[in-house]
Amino acid sequence: MKVGVIGGGQLGQMLAMAAVPLDIEVLCLEKSRDCPASRVTDIFVSDYYDRDKIEAFRHQVDVVTYEFENVPIETVRYLSTKLPVYPPVEALEVSQERIQEKNFFNQQGVPTASYASVKKESELLDATLQIGMPGILKTCRLGYDGKGQFHIKSQQDIAKAWEALGNQPLIYEQKIAYDREVSLIVVRGKDGAIAFYPLTENQHINGILATSKAPYENELLTQQAQRYLQTIMHALNYVGVLVVEFFVKENQLLANEMAPRVHNSGHWTIEGAVCSQFENHIRAICGLPLGSTATVGRSVMTNIIGELPDVEAVLKKPSAHLHLYGKKPRPGRKLGHITDIEFVY
Amino acid sequence: MKVGVIGGGQLGQMLAMAAVPLDIEVLCLEKSRDCPASRVTDIFVSDYYDRDKIEAFRHQVDVVTYEFENVPIETVRYLSTKLPVYPPVEALEVSQERIQEKNFFNQQGVPTASYASVKKESELLDATLQIGMPGILKTCRLGYDGKGQFHIKSQQDIAKAWEALGNQPLIYEQKIAYDREVSLIVVRGKDGAIAFYPLTENQHINGILATSKAPYENELLTQQAQRYLQTIMHALNYVGVLVVEFFVKENQLLANEMAPRVHNSGHWTIEGAVCSQFENHIRAICGLPLGSTATVGRSVMTNIIGELPDVEAVLKKPSAHLHLYGKKPRPGRKLGHITDIEFVY
Repeated sequence: MKVGVIGGGQLGQMLAMAAVPLDIEVLCLEKSRDCPASRVTDIFVSDYYDRDKIEAFRHQVDVVTYEFENVPIETVRYLSTKLPVYPPVEALEVSQERIQEKNFFNQQGVPTASYASVKKESELLDATLQIGMPGILKTCRLGYDGKGQFHIKSQQDIAKAWEALGNQPLIYEQKIAYDREVSLIVVRGKDGAIAFYPLTENQHINGILATSKAPYENELLTQQAQRYLQTIMHALNYVGVLVVEFFVKENQLLANEMAPRVHNSGHWTIEGAVCSQFENHIRAICGLPLGSTATVGRSVMTNIIGELPDVEAVLKKPSAHLHLYGKKPRPGRKLGHITDIEFVY
Repeated sequence: MKVGVIGGGQLGQMLAMAAVPLDIEVLCLEKSRDCPASRVTDIFVSDYYDRDKIEAFRHQVDVVTYEFENVPIETVRYLSTKLPVYPPVEALEVSQERIQEKNFFNQQGVPTASYASVKKESELLDATLQIGMPGILKTCRLGYDGKGQFHIKSQQDIAKAWEALGNQPLIYEQKIAYDREVSLIVVRGKDGAIAFYPLTENQHINGILATSKAPYENELLTQQAQRYLQTIMHALNYVGVLVVEFFVKENQLLANEMAPRVHNSGHWTIEGAVCSQFENHIRAICGLPLGSTATVGRSVMTNIIGELPDVEAVLKKPSAHLHLYGKKPRPGRKLGHITDIEFVY
């Protein structure tokens, strides 16, 4: 069995490593051999749009998945006519465009913050009046790690926001004064079997995930979140790992966004759960039984962003698991993460 | 930092995987690219004796280690004149020859079963009379997984044993009616820091390790074993993972053999300890702080020997971690292992 992964970043690398003990091969499609996944698996060097190369790639693999959302949808749709692609292309499509995504959440009965489509500056003014301020203006596509966002606190910010982001499809979202952010990571097998990890509590700094703590224990919210993800997966005939990020406000969940893939907020599952999100994603898309999502302790995952830490100091900490991605330091870039596990339940 | 590993079997593969998150590269020297380690890291294809290739190999790495004992000692000795080689060549040399190894144990105050050198058939008769029967005749070199051994129960077996193994240096060892077999896995850093894993209880079938259970809790034996390994490591100025296998008889330890490398009886440490023997070996030989050897539960490791199991059935067991090595089935061949962890301390 050989899995084709579109993307060769750290998520592709971790998928490849999880596949090795199952004797499943992984081939990552990436624009350059200089990527984290090349440290552990073969790279098929190709542009994401190159139809001839994509055609050669698909002949080398048995099933295709992807490790980031911003894969060209045409590429994934084409591949899905030729071989199994998981998660399904519909899930990817929904997740690529913020208005579609929020409409989809609401259609499925999953509440979100208020939002409005913004195509011209006058619509932005209308949106702020209708939804109120503060709010966030975001590009509908291709935003990640806080990129493509502008916070609007008062009417003075409107022109600046438009100047920064205008002339492309935008969404204006109500800014929620949330109590906390959580994500739910779930995996669904080809046979419809579902395994939920516990809720993870996340903290973002400057729009980039900084820390994830699991489990976040709240029976009511867990049930609510599980119900929502079950509905979403059913609607999409989902296979693989799915992650939905929520705001928590007065013990209610508001869906923020979904990732149809393994996710940074699930990195703690490598050491903190019996079977990691990576192994479970591989198992799911290969039609194998799902692994246990039980935790083995309390995990705190901290991203290494922009600059490398003092490696010796990290390794001296008995509870710490260091994961470096082999990437060159650059401001705002995810270079690795550290998972600390406390075995005191 | 780049580590050269002599050997590209499953142990080399697991060392390579443990090095990735530390952003340490691994290059395995192996006779063929068709080996378990090639699934995750680069292979330097070479015979273990090819001086020109060994010379090229050492220029590509910063430190050298090995994943099996039967590396030509001349190769390792040569390399150790050119760059750091851990564990030290003296440890490898001692472990390669059973009489040297047992002499060394006894010199260090580590008891063993009785043994005698056997160079001709008459010496074998003398040895059986002196040491008694039952006993085991073994080749002094190159034996592993029960190969190169002949059990002698009575005088009738002597001629057969000589016929099977004669005309090479042999050792006749007293056969111990042991209560159990245990191994102690330890790691020593360049700075002399030492971290012990708990005692592991092992069961061999037909001379091949079948199962390992850890921790085997026995305060007295643990202290005894730790004292022995401390003495051995000190004597050899040891760096890296060291494993000594013991027989337990009436609450006393008798050393059977040592492995100056990561070891099959420590595979459970991948999921069953905070930091695995593989990561700790890499940390030690790279001069990094050692990781925690604390356990996270009770582990039972079962080798997959000769034929592959029903993968789906294994994966359905929530506590099981499957590790396949990507090797073709063959009688007596180690194809993988399964570690079951119980989180009920």
